[in-house]
Amino acid sequence: MSKIPVLEIFGPTIQGEGMIVGRKTMFVRTAGCDYHCTWCDSAFTWDGSAKADIVQMTSDQIWQQLKEVGGNQFDHVTISGGNPALLAALDIFIDLLQEKGIEVALETQGSQYQQWFLKINDLTISPKPPSSKMKTNWEKLDYIIDQLAINGRLAHTSLKVVIFDREDFQYAEKVHQRYPEVAFFLQVGNDDVEEVDAQQLSRHLLNKYEWLIDQVVASTVLNRVRVLPQVHALIWGNKRGV
Amino acid sequence: MSKIPVLEIFGPTIQGEGMIVGRKTMFVRTAGCDYHCTWCDSAFTWDGSAKADIVQMTSDQIWQQLKEVGGNQFDHVTISGGNPALLAALDIFIDLLQEKGIEVALETQGSQYQQWFLKINDLTISPKPPSSKMKTNWEKLDYIIDQLAINGRLAHTSLKVVIFDREDFQYAEKVHQRYPEVAFFLQVGNDDVEEVDAQQLSRHLLNKYEWLIDQVVASTVLNRVRVLPQVHALIWGNKRGV
Ligand code: SF4
Ligand code: SF4
Repeated sequence: MSKIPVLEIFGPTIQGEGMIVGRKTMFVRTAGCDYHCTWCDSAFTWDGSAKADIVQMTSDQIWQQLKEVGGNQFDHVTISGGNPALLAALDIFIDLLQEKGIEVALETQGSQYQQWFLKINDLTISPKPPSSKMKTNWEKLDYIIDQLAINGRLAHTSLKVVIFDREDFQYAEKVHQRYPEVAFFLQVGNDDVEEVDAQQLSRHLLNKYEWLIDQVVASTVLNRVRVLPQVHALIWGNKRGV
Repeated sequence: MSKIPVLEIFGPTIQGEGMIVGRKTMFVRTAGCDYHCTWCDSAFTWDGSAKADIVQMTSDQIWQQLKEVGGNQFDHVTISGGNPALLAALDIFIDLLQEKGIEVALETQGSQYQQWFLKINDLTISPKPPSSKMKTNWEKLDYIIDQLAINGRLAHTSLKVVIFDREDFQYAEKVHQRYPEVAFFLQVGNDDVEEVDAQQLSRHLLNKYEWLIDQVVASTVLNRVRVLPQVHALIWGNKRGV
């Protein structure tokens, strides 16, 4: 049985971002990414620094650990990365969770399609803006959105763009104009993943959030949109595993 | 033509709470409430203090003012109160907005049903917990949720309970158990509506938010739920009209 490279299993906690912000959930973080964004807040999933912590697990093993850690206090699991869309093996794991009555959320940057996207309850496609120094593959993204639309999955899908500067903002406008029918989220970028003082960071991020709201308010292109901070970063700062 | 008592029209800004938190929207605040919650953060809508500011407006007049203030920068209007469910006249206004391609959100405490609930795009029913000193009319609430369910509107509906203390939390568990099929939100109560220092307030509210998350995490009753702060209060504190 094919295995899944797992770096962290934790929770219950809340989802801090995007379409289901605030949702009580467990997290399973997978290793590996085909991108290397300049500001990646989970670079340990791909830069080799946490290589020794990666555990190759079967779906059953992950499920056992979820139950051990989360007991009867959850009915939702978020699969994050890295880029979990690299892992064809997630197919069986998603089936297993849903058989157990668990809803599944997953985030990916949209560089790769998987058939199992169509089963995800809350799918976030988060293409990376210019500040990441990554280049969006628009044909690939078109294909993914197309597949989701054709299969009637748009109610379970959102696009999310993280914003660090004006150029990122213009990129967000472009994404929303290209896929106007997909729920669209703008998120404040955390440009200070080294700050250890959660209070300092929270003040800084709230200022940036206010700036982002001002930009969106002034735009006539971005109307049917939602603007959010990372609420977990406001509470816990840059701490991992919460 | 029957008129609507309006206290404020402002925006665009973001929705700070609940099921569409972060959504770019305009606000129309109506006057009047059948409750008088101890901690009401918009008591000026019913305590007489802003009586002189109430303007009786037709739907067309409200629409004109929305366009004047918001230009082409919005496609969503939030009707808040007070309790807008007291106003049968909103029926025509909601029709007018939707004819213009505008989505409509509305919040009410669930003390009163209106046929036009069935047209609201994002309907929040927010029954008040013990700390409010108000008493929930459960038969009325049952009736409202029933009507929404029968008419296939649950995808457009959420329940939201504001939490100030443990007793409120137990009330929230009861509400969620009574209506398990309705999207359920827990929200941090703002117990300091007098604080003028937004930074102080935001720190205080984030601490309370963390407490609330801890309660929800520990509960086996509250799994399919979302826990949120009031994000506008984190940015702007107790300022009105933002
Ligand atoms: S796509 Fe995500 S995980 Fe991969 S490098 Fe970028 S931010 Fe990090
Ligand atoms: S129901 Fe809402 S507006 Fe009315 S008193 Fe309570 S909090 Fe205030």
